[in-house]
Amino acid sequence: MIIGFIGLGIMGRPMAKNLISAGYKLVVYDKYARIDDLAAQGAEKAVSGRDAAARSDVVITMLPNSPHVKEAILGSGGVIEGIRPGSTVVDMSSIAPAVSQEAAAALKDKGVNFLDAPVSGGEPKAVDGTLAIMVGGDRETFESVKPILEKMGSSVVLVGGVGAGNVAKLANQVIVALNIAAVSEALVLAAKAGVEPLAVFEAVKGGLAGSTVMNAKVPLILDGNFKPGFRIELHIKDLQNALDTAQHLGVPLPLTAEVMEILQALKVDGLGASDHGAIVRYYEKLSKIELGNR
Amino acid sequence: MIIGFIGLGIMGRPMAKNLISAGYKLVVYDKYARIDDLAAQGAEKAVSGRDAAARSDVVITMLPNSPHVKEAILGSGGVIEGIRPGSTVVDMSSIAPAVSQEAAAALKDKGVNFLDAPVSGGEPKAVDGTLAIMVGGDRETFESVKPILEKMGSSVVLVGGVGAGNVAKLANQVIVALNIAAVSEALVLAAKAGVEPLAVFEAVKGGLAGSTVMNAKVPLILDGNFKPGFRIELHIKDLQNALDTAQHLGVPLPLTAEVMEILQALKVDGLGASDHGAIVRYYEKLSKIELGNR
Repeated sequence: MIIGFIGLGIMGRPMAKNLISAGYKLVVYDKYARIDDLAAQGAEKAVSGRDAAARSDVVITMLPNSPHVKEAILGSGGVIEGIRPGSTVVDMSSIAPAVSQEAAAALKDKGVNFLDAPVSGGEPKAVDGTLAIMVGGDRETFESVKPILEKMGSSVVLVGGVGAGNVAKLANQVIVALNIAAVSEALVLAAKAGVEPLAVFEAVKGGLAGSTVMNAKVPLILDGNFKPGFRIELHIKDLQNALDTAQHLGVPLPLTAEVMEILQALKVDGLGASDHGAIVRYYEKLSKIELGNR
Repeated sequence: MIIGFIGLGIMGRPMAKNLISAGYKLVVYDKYARIDDLAAQGAEKAVSGRDAAARSDVVITMLPNSPHVKEAILGSGGVIEGIRPGSTVVDMSSIAPAVSQEAAAALKDKGVNFLDAPVSGGEPKAVDGTLAIMVGGDRETFESVKPILEKMGSSVVLVGGVGAGNVAKLANQVIVALNIAAVSEALVLAAKAGVEPLAVFEAVKGGLAGSTVMNAKVPLILDGNFKPGFRIELHIKDLQNALDTAQHLGVPLPLTAEVMEILQALKVDGLGASDHGAIVRYYEKLSKIELGNR
């Protein structure tokens, strides 16, 4: 079993390393990133997506957004030009579900299976191999690559047909952005009322207001620690895909649209590369207050 | 130790019963509700708030909103007319923090201690004695009544000075309303994209999108079960207090304001007495789709 791995950035690189550590033979390609360290660990270098695909049984792509995936899989010198019938492409990028479906249809004409399998958890969980992986595609293909995915993630769930993985990821990102904004509105209100945000956190976290976002982000927010984590500009990308998909399907998402504007304002303010916990900064500026010790 | 208990509605009644079960002697009063069942369990009936206060060491009030608390504590025939210096009033209603501070100041002039101690958890946890109780006031008064509060709640936290309990409760209600809306936007988007909401729930609940709201409400939403729980019209009351407090303090809360409008629309649509999980109904109507089996 040879795995082609295309896209070796902040997320793809540690994911590929976990596959190498698990004993898989990798053929790696990235248009920009240096891959000498992976080669030193035994991965073979490819000169293009086509080359990587031609030398692999399963091709994994991990790229920033829909256009990069279209280019890498369907473009000139891309995966589709080299891949053999019967192979499988697993796109683990977070992209528009419609693009997953477009790639799947083109590959199907070549006798190639396709799964969309975006991940949640960010760089730390990519390093630990404990990502949450949301998969779209047919069950047979899913079962055939599940052992590979389980080397990168601790939760590997088939959500539905092709595109369903990215639909789940968009749902995930809508919820996360709004939950961060919810905690931000609540804590800024409390602080401006003269109540310690940390005390409010302690009082409400065990009840219905409790969330993973609250437990993960409030300590960082109160420390003024906005080191990513997950960058504002990536969350903008995901919400743009959610809003585009929603508009196409006829789904008004008023709160998602509003938190998107908040993210845009933060990017304009120079915080695009900050963690999405910096949503609280928007509210702090509105109310002219700072939480915690900065 | 004799406890006066004023306000024996859906919440107050089971809370009072838990105090009786714990061995406390109660003097009970409600302007409207029948209290024969509590009398049958050994509680004494009072004829007014003044009467209840005159016969008690600690007075607990559990009323719908700020005006009811002002009337019961500060109004004619109210607690303030009967209570003895050195006694303590614990208002467990969810009201505006400014009204807590107003009541505290008036009682202080009579040598009476005051705590605001609103609760979270709804009727089921009131019955079980497992409410989350958020307390505002001084530590000495808090410690003196903590054993009483612990008969009604499993989490009893001093958040800050008088009013801080209600500030924490408002923060709690802001977060809960927005987290329900977040899950609603996400699941309606997924459903309209042809993906099973239950599968999305399973795929994302273990990651950063996970929340107590998600675990508690999604199964009910997918069953079309909007039996309260916590009624839309009560959540409107709490968000109105949050928005009034925010306006007074100078805290713009754009997302809270928008989810308030959603709650108002649902009330206009006849769902005021439904559980706040019915926020999803707003989105279902917008997108002309229904989740789950109705």
